[in-house]
Amino acid sequence: MRALKERVIKIFNHLDEKPGAIFIKNSVEPFIDENFFYATNLEKGLFEGSAAIIFPDGNIDLIVSELESESAKKANAELKVYKNKEEFDNFLKESLSSIDKIGINANSIVYKDFVKLRDILPGKKLLDVSIGFSKARSIKDFDEIQRIRKATNIVDKVMEKIPAILKEDMFEYELAAEIGYLLQKYGADKSAFDIISSFGKNAAEPHYTHGETKLKNGDFVLCDFGACFKRYNSDITRTFVFGKASENQKKMYEVVKNAQQVGFNAIKNDIEASFVHKEVESFINDTEYNGRFIHSTGHSLGLSVHDGGVGLSSESTAKLKENMVLTVEPGIYIPGFGGVRIEDDILVKKDGIEILTKFSRDFIEI
Amino acid sequence: MRALKERVIKIFNHLDEKPGAIFIKNSVEPFIDENFFYATNLEKGLFEGSAAIIFPDGNIDLIVSELESESAKKANAELKVYKNKEEFDNFLKESLSSIDKIGINANSIVYKDFVKLRDILPGKKLLDVSIGFSKARSIKDFDEIQRIRKATNIVDKVMEKIPAILKEDMFEYELAAEIGYLLQKYGADKSAFDIISSFGKNAAEPHYTHGETKLKNGDFVLCDFGACFKRYNSDITRTFVFGKASENQKKMYEVVKNAQQVGFNAIKNDIEASFVHKEVESFINDTEYNGRFIHSTGHSLGLSVHDGGVGLSSESTAKLKENMVLTVEPGIYIPGFGGVRIEDDILVKKDGIEILTKFSRDFIEI
Repeated sequence: MRALKERVIKIFNHLDEKPGAIFIKNSVEPFIDENFFYATNLEKGLFEGSAAIIFPDGNIDLIVSELESESAKKANAELKVYKNKEEFDNFLKESLSSIDKIGINANSIVYKDFVKLRDILPGKKLLDVSIGFSKARSIKDFDEIQRIRKATNIVDKVMEKIPAILKEDMFEYELAAEIGYLLQKYGADKSAFDIISSFGKNAAEPHYTHGETKLKNGDFVLCDFGACFKRYNSDITRTFVFGKASENQKKMYEVVKNAQQVGFNAIKNDIEASFVHKEVESFINDTEYNGRFIHSTGHSLGLSVHDGGVGLSSESTAKLKENMVLTVEPGIYIPGFGGVRIEDDILVKKDGIEILTKFSRDFIEI
Repeated sequence: MRALKERVIKIFNHLDEKPGAIFIKNSVEPFIDENFFYATNLEKGLFEGSAAIIFPDGNIDLIVSELESESAKKANAELKVYKNKEEFDNFLKESLSSIDKIGINANSIVYKDFVKLRDILPGKKLLDVSIGFSKARSIKDFDEIQRIRKATNIVDKVMEKIPAILKEDMFEYELAAEIGYLLQKYGADKSAFDIISSFGKNAAEPHYTHGETKLKNGDFVLCDFGACFKRYNSDITRTFVFGKASENQKKMYEVVKNAQQVGFNAIKNDIEASFVHKEVESFINDTEYNGRFIHSTGHSLGLSVHDGGVGLSSESTAKLKENMVLTVEPGIYIPGFGGVRIEDDILVKKDGIEILTKFSRDFIEI
């Protein structure tokens, strides 16, 4: 399990001010910290209420309830199984009382657990170390890339089946059900996020999921979904037209497709993330669809669907680095009419990119 | 939308120390506060980064990004759409600067957002009001019970299909895929949580989900899943035996079934939640399966699968009240052999319960 020790050590290496240990604490669903799984690499189990304490030498103390003790054995960690809250607190003191400076993840620890740590171990310096996790997680290691590859293979296979599934008068939620089924059939542990299958003008709402709208001739069909494979996610979007497309629909599609290519061309090792977004955005704003691209160009992908803090957005201050995995997903949204988005997952290479999602980006009328 | 004003007012009524407003803040997925949806009743949309500020008179200020502005219009709230972080902060000041005492949910606000609020509005008293939400949410109103009823109807229909789906040598993940598909086909917006479909000895791990184990003759088949309908959840478990059951399997099942009935009999308005758990636990501990029931008897159900803080556990200090919705789910787990759990969702009535999930609790060999 040397690889995992290296992950923990990598987290500490990214910190300017180094704590003597880092406290990772899960609350109850949905407030579970993915960093817990980054450090422990535990593939199965919920781990509500569990804590992992990681040390600069790569070692891990794992504090879990009896409920999780079977699953927890699969981690390469010092396992401490608690029966009640007092035992949890005692294990915590055992691991941390000799440490003066304790790291926490301010982005993912709930305020209540922060207060509890402060009360159990008074007088300690508590340090936000979330930057160490996001920096470590933004550059994927071999095992992570393998899992993401598998997750992208799954969504490719699912997308291929969609044109044959579409039928006039089907409901958006029926398409979502089919997509969810296919994701699991092709090996996903679960859907990476709420499946978006929006028809017609609903495609103009980027975060609309699916409802009781029926598919009609000439509708946009926007499908945005992901596979979660051993906790790692993929994320793909394609927009089809059901029936014969109008000129305006075709034009929207072409602009989005070309905008995505602009994004692909801009990405390589050492480029500013914000530069990529600006390139894509100004490409769209130079067309008649000026102002219709209303979100960022992409996000980092991994244990979380929005992973590791490297976004292709105007506000990003990050530089792209080899072995980052990102989505590239421009879109055009016209309220009352519809929307087009094309999204692919890419791996940053030294001199460019590898596009991990392989499904065709050509315009498809069904 | 009078009902919703009443929800907000109910939250404040449950607080001894009343703030002038309560700040509900979503971070990024998965750190989204369900209380945001309790207060706003918004059925669709992700609302990452959004905030709701609720006032003692029932009014709501809703601060969302442009991405959510379409979806947010469906709330009966004062809508403020921000374009960047500075605008978000200004809206926050606009809503809260005249308030001296601000409520927060310590269980669901991440530490970073707590710090940000403190920095934007220095000198305010920040008060943990999560107890107001959990108390309000523990007693369901008419609209909530309707949605949960619908969610329980869906899982009943899905469970009915399972015996016919089971086939020798099928994988656990295939069964999970079928269950997921059926959930959505019968009207769920999504699966309430990771579907558990465990075969054979895997059923001994309460939080195991599903893997690549194949179904063999004589295996336990433990299915634990839920439907999420308009954000409200159901949660059901049944344990079948594939093929002819052994005497030990039958005996385990009978003990669990009878233990559940002990739980049902114990529940009514004004009973201590811990009493119910103790009754069920001691029933099991009086059998040869002493010590094999390793979790609590049940949990409150609603917007969250583990909702509202009322658990049927030994540590609970709550009293059961009319219109609470709870699971009753005893289990027996024998590592290396297997496990049995039976779980139903019940509505607390004045003099007893209504069992919302209707699927048979009789022992089923397939």
